[in-house]
Amino acid sequence: MYLGQVIGLAIATRKDERLVGTKLLITQPILPDGSFSGQPIIAVDSVGAGIGERVIFVTGSVAARIMSDPNAPCDAAIVGIIDSIESFHR
Amino acid sequence: MYLGQVIGLAIATRKDERLVGTKLLITQPILPDGSFSGQPIIAVDSVGAGIGERVIFVTGSVAARIMSDPNAPCDAAIVGIIDSIESFHR
Amino acid sequence: MYLGQVIGLAIATRKDERLVGTKLLITQPILPDGSFSGQPIIAVDSVGAGIGERVIFVTGSVAARIMSDPNAPCDAAIVGIIDSIESFHR
Amino acid sequence: MYLGQVIGLAIATRKDERLVGTKLLITQPILPDGSFSGQPIIAVDSVGAGIGERVIFVTGSVAARIMSDPNAPCDAAIVGIIDSIESFHR
Amino acid sequence: MYLGQVIGLAIATRKDERLVGTKLLITQPILPDGSFSGQPIIAVDSVGAGIGERVIFVTGSVAARIMSDPNAPCDAAIVGIIDSIESFHR
Repeated sequence: MYLGQVIGLAIATRKDERLVGTKLLITQPILPDGSFSGQPIIAVDSVGAGIGERVIFVTGSVAARIMSDPNAPCDAAIVGIIDSIESFHR
Repeated sequence: MYLGQVIGLAIATRKDERLVGTKLLITQPILPDGSFSGQPIIAVDSVGAGIGERVIFVTGSVAARIMSDPNAPCDAAIVGIIDSIESFHR
Repeated sequence: MYLGQVIGLAIATRKDERLVGTKLLITQPILPDGSFSGQPIIAVDSVGAGIGERVIFVTGSVAARIMSDPNAPCDAAIVGIIDSIESFHR
Repeated sequence: MYLGQVIGLAIATRKDERLVGTKLLITQPILPDGSFSGQPIIAVDSVGAGIGERVIFVTGSVAARIMSDPNAPCDAAIVGIIDSIESFHR
Repeated sequence: MYLGQVIGLAIATRKDERLVGTKLLITQPILPDGSFSGQPIIAVDSVGAGIGERVIFVTGSVAARIMSDPNAPCDAAIVGIIDSIESFHR
């Protein structure tokens, strides 16, 4: 899993039918201190994340497990909303 | 999922038989502002994407789920065409 | 598998129900000499790793195999605690 | 999928028995203009690719689908030989 | 698959029970000319690789296929020992 921050929304009317009804959230990977690092991904959401919130997301085939159709072509999903981070060494 | 822009087409007469009949679209990863970032990949298409269009693509084993034969050796697929992006913070 | 050091903890009250009850450990990839390299990930733990310990972690779909529910949306897991490293050439 | 060029051959007498009889082709990722980009990988071949040819390869678990034993420990495979590339914007 | 050189050994007494009895080899990715490139990974071994040997390794879920328990949480495995490399262009 990775730390991220929801920074936007992608609108796609034409999409794979198994993705219809999902929100496609632009999610920026972040470091434990909140700074941005790396390239944004598009994640589906299972936990009601909103713009600006810090989240935990997964990538790869396990992401599809949050979909109502777990055979959807989905490779990134938000699986938690961060309350707080306790970080040492960095 | 990732944001991308279709920038070309690869022609391959000799290919795995499970890929016959698919379009192999050269897809450039992009940032939310549309600028190019990273190396192009080759994605199959399930949504009728054309050259120049901005799309959402998946990578890894879930990509094969868009194929008529879901056991095809395919690891990248376009699953949506972007209408608009609402991006904050970047 | 990768070498890492546990450097923190992420607290997420709202999360996928299959992740409830797991500790989400912020894990920094390290080189054999212990220096930090690359971006921290969030890993679940199956071996009782504590803050500061050096560990071995896996990523991708195999990580979910350590969960009590192996269908959890989990893509990173600590699978061992390092006692020592014998490294040559570096 | 990725664009690549076959630049060599790795010989390995001792190998997993499910890989016996396969050619292990050193494959350099390339950009649409043919320039090298990134680190070579070792791919098995299902389409008769030769040294110097430009190819399309897949990575990850789907690569094993080209093997006679689809349970082989294989994570990279050549699935097409490029005839031509039509690239715009780059 | 990737070219690598075994450069060390990680000792982990506490580990997932499905990894007990495996050697955890620190494996440095290399280029065809033998130079180091990228960050070392920890790979299990199925072919009797020793310190200093040049090897072929796989990553991701297919790596677990070399384990006696193919459901082990393992994402990197050595699957061949390199006798020689014939490389062109580089």
